[in-house]
Amino acid sequence: MTTSANASANTSSTIAAQVHDMGLRAQAASRVLATLSARAKNDVLADMADAIADARPAILAANARDLEAAREAGLSDAMLDRLLLTTDRLDAIVSAVRNLRDLPDPVGQELSRWVRPNGLIIRKVRVPIGVIAMIYEARPNVTVDAAALCFKTSNAVILRCGREALGTSQAFVNALHSALARNHLPPDCIQLLSILDYSAVTQLVQLEGLVDLVIPRGGETLIRAVTAQARVPVIKHYKGVCHIYVHADADPDEAIAIIENAKCSRPGVCNACEKVLVHEAIAPTFLPRLAERLRANHVELRGDPATCAILPDALPATPDDWDAEYLDLVLAIAVVPSVQAAIDHVNRHSSHHSDSILGADPAALDAFTAQVDSACVYTNASTRFTDGGEFGMGAEIGISTDKLHARGPMGLEELTSYKYIITGSGQTR
Amino acid sequence: MTTSANASANTSSTIAAQVHDMGLRAQAASRVLATLSARAKNDVLADMADAIADARPAILAANARDLEAAREAGLSDAMLDRLLLTTDRLDAIVSAVRNLRDLPDPVGQELSRWVRPNGLIIRKVRVPIGVIAMIYEARPNVTVDAAALCFKTSNAVILRCGREALGTSQAFVNALHSALARNHLPPDCIQLLSILDYSAVTQLVQLEGLVDLVIPRGGETLIRAVTAQARVPVIKHYKGVCHIYVHADADPDEAIAIIENAKCSRPGVCNACEKVLVHEAIAPTFLPRLAERLRANHVELRGDPATCAILPDALPATPDDWDAEYLDLVLAIAVVPSVQAAIDHVNRHSSHHSDSILGADPAALDAFTAQVDSACVYTNASTRFTDGGEFGMGAEIGISTDKLHARGPMGLEELTSYKYIITGSGQTR
Repeated sequence: MTTSANASANTSSTIAAQVHDMGLRAQAASRVLATLSARAKNDVLADMADAIADARPAILAANARDLEAAREAGLSDAMLDRLLLTTDRLDAIVSAVRNLRDLPDPVGQELSRWVRPNGLIIRKVRVPIGVIAMIYEARPNVTVDAAALCFKTSNAVILRCGREALGTSQAFVNALHSALARNHLPPDCIQLLSILDYSAVTQLVQLEGLVDLVIPRGGETLIRAVTAQARVPVIKHYKGVCHIYVHADADPDEAIAIIENAKCSRPGVCNACEKVLVHEAIAPTFLPRLAERLRANHVELRGDPATCAILPDALPATPDDWDAEYLDLVLAIAVVPSVQAAIDHVNRHSSHHSDSILGADPAALDAFTAQVDSACVYTNASTRFTDGGEFGMGAEIGISTDKLHARGPMGLEELTSYKYIITGSGQTR
Repeated sequence: MTTSANASANTSSTIAAQVHDMGLRAQAASRVLATLSARAKNDVLADMADAIADARPAILAANARDLEAAREAGLSDAMLDRLLLTTDRLDAIVSAVRNLRDLPDPVGQELSRWVRPNGLIIRKVRVPIGVIAMIYEARPNVTVDAAALCFKTSNAVILRCGREALGTSQAFVNALHSALARNHLPPDCIQLLSILDYSAVTQLVQLEGLVDLVIPRGGETLIRAVTAQARVPVIKHYKGVCHIYVHADADPDEAIAIIENAKCSRPGVCNACEKVLVHEAIAPTFLPRLAERLRANHVELRGDPATCAILPDALPATPDDWDAEYLDLVLAIAVVPSVQAAIDHVNRHSSHHSDSILGADPAALDAFTAQVDSACVYTNASTRFTDGGEFGMGAEIGISTDKLHARGPMGLEELTSYKYIITGSGQTR
């Protein structure tokens, strides 16, 4: 073995040891968190909000350094905007932490309780999940959101943000640590994985017995890598390829307003509409009106052959278009012969996030909501409502596109597990 | 590349294609299953029970062939017993399928419903998971249990049993297919993966987008392999290293009766007790009486130094003993100074399945149930009650030792997911 191979092996085993140690410390912290009352946690959340407010200058300075480095590295304007903290954005982050105090604490809640004929009392009680690893991109606000939501639910968290946001995230975590220290809680409740080498992430998602859940939130490459490597459970927050199907009997004005809202109000988010399917009976009259409205919003249209025959200036869609998440002012449109064809198209191409049917016929609406296999299935509404706040959950850590444990917007309850506590009086089987 | 390497590559790509095709067909079948009413499914379950009863001779003959081959291969008596079907066992399997008809169908159940200020009606509704892959050992009864439970919950299932039970399982699946055919349902609702090559299992657990959940049920090697390879969500049904802690103020007679029951009534199952922890204040008087009762049951005792000082004929426990699942008449005993020491020991060595505290002091009982991080935490009862039937669930597919989605006994509800159906009247955001 050469000296350099030796050095590399040493580095990788050092990283493995460091990450393993973070897992051990997170697990120990999670045991402390599990004993805190709701009131005690709310007091700490208030201190966390104050600590972030007090650390404004340090946080903004760190963010300015992150932004400068990101600009030099040639990040796109959209990514720079996600990274940017303004005073307003910082105020919103502080408010979000303060608002968490007012939400009910799900931990300890009795989900059900029954008595067996032998006298055993079985209670199903919400408990924290334990240790959560959150892997996300260069969005500093997610650092605070995830840390505060995990703290509120008595989970220890290991945060791994995109490297471009590391300085800002570290400044936030420093503030959160000062609030933990003021309350005699271990800093290991909230840890930031700042080892740049990607092998640290691989180690993290393979910490069986120490990490209980991995939540990857971001682009397809990130999620695929985590899923392929993970040995602990993963809840994916995957892309949004959201569809709106316009049935033959839809109200055209309402349909145009809904599609305009779903496509144009915020095209860069995961609940924006990316595809429109239109019933062939309404297509010849509906599509020209829809196209006119969307063109006024600078939306580029791509169509299947039937759509292009009606809208000569639409670009022909390629096969890749039907699975693409544009996150931009682009929309693909197809004409379908029936609601069943629309359902089949959606089930083949949707990312199982949010899909909507517009129309009146109850049979068509029922078929669509029953058969479309997505987290959120709408009738006569914009897909943009898939959001913890819009659902009334008060806060969300993201939107699960998985079917196990949590589906759709994930709020506080979705950050808990349960256990059975069985009270006996000497029963044997 | 040599000819033989070419042949091997071809075989492995053929297996991959075959398994992928099974996944596609399972997904198509799951869409059909999702449209069935509870009544229609119950009628099919009745036909399934009849079909198994009618196929008794073929099933018993297949089982006799499996047993003969297993004996020649030198399987242990315990494994041969698991593989063996008797007329009584076959009757019990038929009854279990019949009993499923009487259980409520969780699919379609409305879990919650609320109206937002903007008029959107949000309903959270139970839906099937989709396609479930069940990977287990040579236990033919699991073939029918898993197939019937998945069918009752409108999930398509791909079964992979231990190779020694393949003939028996195929005979069962043939009977189930005849019941499906009689009801004009595709055989792909229930598929048996009979490719012996292990790469077929690797392919199966990596079918992202086709398989929604993998449930491995069996030994540590099986579960570790599946967890390391899987790219779809896994719910592990892992070993049971169950503890009973005897607090200083426990009633000795009741404690001895509970430990005898938990250790001796069925030592080969996952809810049997494997470790006993005893408070030091009660150990000198309690342990000799416990040992006498257990020796009468032919239980081998292994102790820590403090235990061996009290029980001179106990074998000294090795470090491995504290994590071992014996599944046999063996028990390891340790003396602990406090309930907190017991909690720490359990959290370090338990498989998070079932653990029990025996005693009277409410503070000790509360500390144990609050802090022990296991699916089922008991006070003053035997760990043997962790079971879908004993919990009153009516049926179970196994006992999850994971914390996500399902924990503890998994019945019909745990074989479902949910989706949000949102009814609008033109809302935009």
